[in-house]
Amino acid sequence: MSIDILIEKIKEKKNPTVAGLDPRWEYVPGYIQEAAIAKYGKTNKAVGAALLEFNKGLIDGLCDVVPAVKPQSAYYEMYGLSGLNALAETISYAREKGMYVILDGKRNDIGKTAEAYAGAYLAKVNAGEIEVANELESEGLTVNGYLGTDGIKPFVEACRDFGKIIFVLVKTSNPSSGELQDLLVDGEMICQKMASMVNRWGEGLEGKYGYTPVGAVVGATYPKQLSELRSLMPKSYILVPGYGAQGGGAKDVAGAFDKNGLGAIVNSSRGIMCAYQKGDYKPEDFAKAAYDEAIRMRDDIMQYI
Amino acid sequence: MSIDILIEKIKEKKNPTVAGLDPRWEYVPGYIQEAAIAKYGKTNKAVGAALLEFNKGLIDGLCDVVPAVKPQSAYYEMYGLSGLNALAETISYAREKGMYVILDGKRNDIGKTAEAYAGAYLAKVNAGEIEVANELESEGLTVNGYLGTDGIKPFVEACRDFGKIIFVLVKTSNPSSGELQDLLVDGEMICQKMASMVNRWGEGLEGKYGYTPVGAVVGATYPKQLSELRSLMPKSYILVPGYGAQGGGAKDVAGAFDKNGLGAIVNSSRGIMCAYQKGDYKPEDFAKAAYDEAIRMRDDIMQYI
Repeated sequence: MSIDILIEKIKEKKNPTVAGLDPRWEYVPGYIQEAAIAKYGKTNKAVGAALLEFNKGLIDGLCDVVPAVKPQSAYYEMYGLSGLNALAETISYAREKGMYVILDGKRNDIGKTAEAYAGAYLAKVNAGEIEVANELESEGLTVNGYLGTDGIKPFVEACRDFGKIIFVLVKTSNPSSGELQDLLVDGEMICQKMASMVNRWGEGLEGKYGYTPVGAVVGATYPKQLSELRSLMPKSYILVPGYGAQGGGAKDVAGAFDKNGLGAIVNSSRGIMCAYQKGDYKPEDFAKAAYDEAIRMRDDIMQYI
Repeated sequence: MSIDILIEKIKEKKNPTVAGLDPRWEYVPGYIQEAAIAKYGKTNKAVGAALLEFNKGLIDGLCDVVPAVKPQSAYYEMYGLSGLNALAETISYAREKGMYVILDGKRNDIGKTAEAYAGAYLAKVNAGEIEVANELESEGLTVNGYLGTDGIKPFVEACRDFGKIIFVLVKTSNPSSGELQDLLVDGEMICQKMASMVNRWGEGLEGKYGYTPVGAVVGATYPKQLSELRSLMPKSYILVPGYGAQGGGAKDVAGAFDKNGLGAIVNSSRGIMCAYQKGDYKPEDFAKAAYDEAIRMRDDIMQYI
């Protein structure tokens, strides 16, 4: 199971973190923006080229110390087809460099259509005799479980058949997450109901560390719920957003881990990507700054595990 | 408000339906597949070209009688960048032909990222001085409200500022939708809670027919809930999937409409796209078959309104 590969990469690097690649144009160092505009003019193509150049530098800087990257699909989609092309190239480059790629797309739909999404990101797709080369294939994908079991099953089947993983939104990191996710049903919150569904969806797919390929997203911004959900989903890896820029600290994420220091992977996006804008870095040193911040984050989190 | 434009298109065509464009390769007539392979070989490019050719024919066949199309993003994403290119060209072609385009993407994320998704599909995006040409811009987008208000607000703001619309998943058409959506909170189902949120998100944005740009998705496969949700969301247009191939009939969707025959738009995808596979059509007549089925569906539904 591919969750084992992620765990082994985490163990090997002694680093349970993932670098979010959410490359807004404003994050890209000016000299990269300028070079792209000089080459392609003020066009979408320049934007895509700049994002990709930035991402490649970040991946180069991070690949020896961070096990995984998490590109956020929205930040590529917003720049149109050139953005999506940059996403495809980013995924491919990160995989080449041995990084585990979790695409943050929060996809969801009814069964037939969920199958198409699974095909897009996790499985093989054929069009008649044509084997589709899917440039957006990743190791993992975030998904939204609002539609229930038949909307998730195709993703789980892709996990089983192609050694992939998913992370189901359980308790998200944003301020309004409780509006729906904390509603009480027979004394149990909706996010806890979702946690039970996550358990059920993963049943029988345990890998050698006891974890299934059906993980969960739980935000660092709700540390108490994070600990509770950890114990409710003993076999699910937890992807933890909200560390750093969103306000979650190392202590807040500690509850996501099991007693062996496994069970969670903590994301930082802006903190790592824009590290060069803090301290004494030149823009040209953005990859070094990202590396330094990744090490700082790793050490920060490891002290509590 | 753009919801008024949709309503006027529906009134003009006397047809409250939308044609889903979910072009699986298997749906594409063989002669189009073969021509694409002859031109591009057994490649992604051939797939993209065939999907686009098929869609253009369907749009040509439908644009005089059907007000809107709803491409399902998953069926393009699954064919990689060539699929996404076909999606962009499909959207652009449908808009040229005067059709209202609702992209079915069920996007969702926390505030900052929801803003990026809104930019991708509904708003304008700038990258510094570059005005991004967003090839995937549509008139409407389906979204998932599991994250609560701050995950939806950026979409609502895009509706307000750029004359767009959204449809929030309330009660989906799939068999498992009740697992989460029918759970009872203080005697009220989650889908009803979501309906209240839909009302709140649309507040103050009523157009001239009394409808807001914040609509809802409610499946034809749950006709009783459809009627109830219609009265719970008096100002929201309802996008109704599940007619035809999924089992919903014209009687089942009747409850989605208000007393003036407005308030809902019923989707059919496979039924229209694959109409040529039924009856006495030649594959070359797929557009005519789609037209005939669209008329049949319109008349079928109109008799109950």
